Amino acid sequence: MRVHLAVLIAGLFIVHSAFAQETPSPQFSLTQDQTHNRFSAAIEPVLRVPSGAVIEVRTEEASDGQLTPTSTVEDVANLDFDPIHPLTGPVYVEGAEPGDVLAVTLHEIELGDYGWTAIVPGFGFLADEFTEPYLKTFTFEDGQTVARFSDGITIPLKPFPGVMGVAPATTDSLSTIPPRANGGNMDDPHLVEGTTAYFPVFVEGALFSIGDAHATQGAGEVCGTAIEAPMRIVYSVEVLKGGRSITEPEYETDDTYAVTAFAETLDEAAKKATRFMVDYLVAEHGLSRPDAYALASLAADLRIAEVVDVPHMLVTMHIPKAIFTE
Amino acid sequence: MRVHLAVLIAGLFIVHSAFAQETPSPQFSLTQDQTHNRFSAAIEPVLRVPSGAVIEVRTEEASDGQLTPTSTVEDVANLDFDPIHPLTGPVYVEGAEPGDVLAVTLHEIELGDYGWTAIVPGFGFLADEFTEPYLKTFTFEDGQTVARFSDGITIPLKPFPGVMGVAPATTDSLSTIPPRANGGNMDDPHLVEGTTAYFPVFVEGALFSIGDAHATQGAGEVCGTAIEAPMRIVYSVEVLKGGRSITEPEYETDDTYAVTAFAETLDEAAKKATRFMVDYLVAEHGLSRPDAYALASLAADLRIAEVVDVPHMLVTMHIPKAIFTE
Repeated sequence: MRVHLAVLIAGLFIVHSAFAQETPSPQFSLTQDQTHNRFSAAIEPVLRVPSGAVIEVRTEEASDGQLTPTSTVEDVANLDFDPIHPLTGPVYVEGAEPGDVLAVTLHEIELGDYGWTAIVPGFGFLADEFTEPYLKTFTFEDGQTVARFSDGITIPLKPFPGVMGVAPATTDSLSTIPPRANGGNMDDPHLVEGTTAYFPVFVEGALFSIGDAHATQGAGEVCGTAIEAPMRIVYSVEVLKGGRSITEPEYETDDTYAVTAFAETLDEAAKKATRFMVDYLVAEHGLSRPDAYALASLAADLRIAEVVDVPHMLVTMHIPKAIFTE
Repeated sequence: MRVHLAVLIAGLFIVHSAFAQETPSPQFSLTQDQTHNRFSAAIEPVLRVPSGAVIEVRTEEASDGQLTPTSTVEDVANLDFDPIHPLTGPVYVEGAEPGDVLAVTLHEIELGDYGWTAIVPGFGFLADEFTEPYLKTFTFEDGQTVARFSDGITIPLKPFPGVMGVAPATTDSLSTIPPRANGGNMDDPHLVEGTTAYFPVFVEGALFSIGDAHATQGAGEVCGTAIEAPMRIVYSVEVLKGGRSITEPEYETDDTYAVTAFAETLDEAAKKATRFMVDYLVAEHGLSRPDAYALASLAADLRIAEVVDVPHMLVTMHIPKAIFTE
């Protein structure tokens, strides 16, 4: 494989985020032009790093520059889906092999200076009713914590990457619209700064990519878009070997462990998520399967991540860590 | 209609809950024996109250005494579904007419002294896999805040009524297992103390009932049961006339407004919930429909309440009140 040389960051790295006090210094950097917009094992990596590397990336917004602060609804009507989503990467992680798990920790997510929300005809959960193009644009200043939706409505910003994923076990070029076992367009608003996400590795080097950042999004992303925005993200990668194998992404924060499951219906995704949670509780907490099922009923929450990334819905199941007292 | 006389409470009412400082004094009281276990407009009320009344009720656990702290898995195997769920009521609220809204505020929810969790063969989200009866029982002391699941697992208690509902517009006797437009077995763990729930009124007097209390439950209630427990609940009722009409229950807390939607699939329930949220934002906050849809995508959360009350799933959509700044 041909691997581009990484830019090793020298000098002081200026940190803007209020939450960044523990951000490790990035050792590698990628620009918003080092992107691809399909998932495939055939896409050559733009960077090669060891396990443990800290990487700073710039990510382009979902439309890859088709929508800007000066765009109009005509630009939404003429939107070309082909360039969606530009993903920064892939990053080849040395030592990662099929069957391993790639842990990705989001250390810092810094919002870019603009964002947009659109209703794209034919796309969205209520596409039958909302058939006209719609666009709202936002501009952001350094340190801004809310988006101004209208004179009387302001929404707290909770930036996160809509897409994180590894290469699938195919050299076919897959659309980045639906999430799959390799992650991808999970559009889960819980994947904020501080989260560690776990991905099953399907190919040598894992080939991790990230992008489609959202300044904020409700669970569901019902109109089909969030506040789509460019970002600067600092993350680290670690190859985990010999532990529990996973079939779809999982993630955790200080407070919560979560499994994710995609399917063509919410019902099937919810069933898979429930099974994954039972598997997790059995493997990691030593419960019998009936005890795990009962505990999930009492203490774990089925949650909807997105309902619009056709043909796949994403459901997650979260369990609070604090219930485990020993 | 024959209406039983209510017991007017005299004397000092002793409050146990830590959250009860603002609980108004109940003016009426119902015991755990004043129950029915179907929803029907033909069921005679056990109490008649004016709008604004504060009512204290005792509620039996879901099995109506079939499962106790000394029960075994054999009792689960022999469980009779016919008595499920004993609901305290119905309460006739004077002045309530079809088309009105009945507001029910949960002022205080006090846990009884025991509870149980069961896997009932043939029931539950993964009924195909979990085919053996299972039972775990719990005992609670005054002021207890957690349930001890095992030596190393304790679950915070968040008591709420699994069932709240008004009479449907039929004199047929409907099973209390599925939730419907009249509310019923919503099994939504957000319906805790401090919540005000809104029900569409289908019959004169509304005929409100409550029961099936849960000491705690995860979103989904995947194994089919929560910690099923008797409770003492203090609630008030208010008839709302001339406002926005609703077709299914909605609710709010200090922080959040929520719509609920039942359907035979999560996908259809989620679509209904999204439409109800758009309707709410248009009617109550003056947004255009496209703005409401976009705002729901950015700031409202689709949430799963329950996936087991066949044949109806319940999905809710929540929007934080704080985003509305004027």
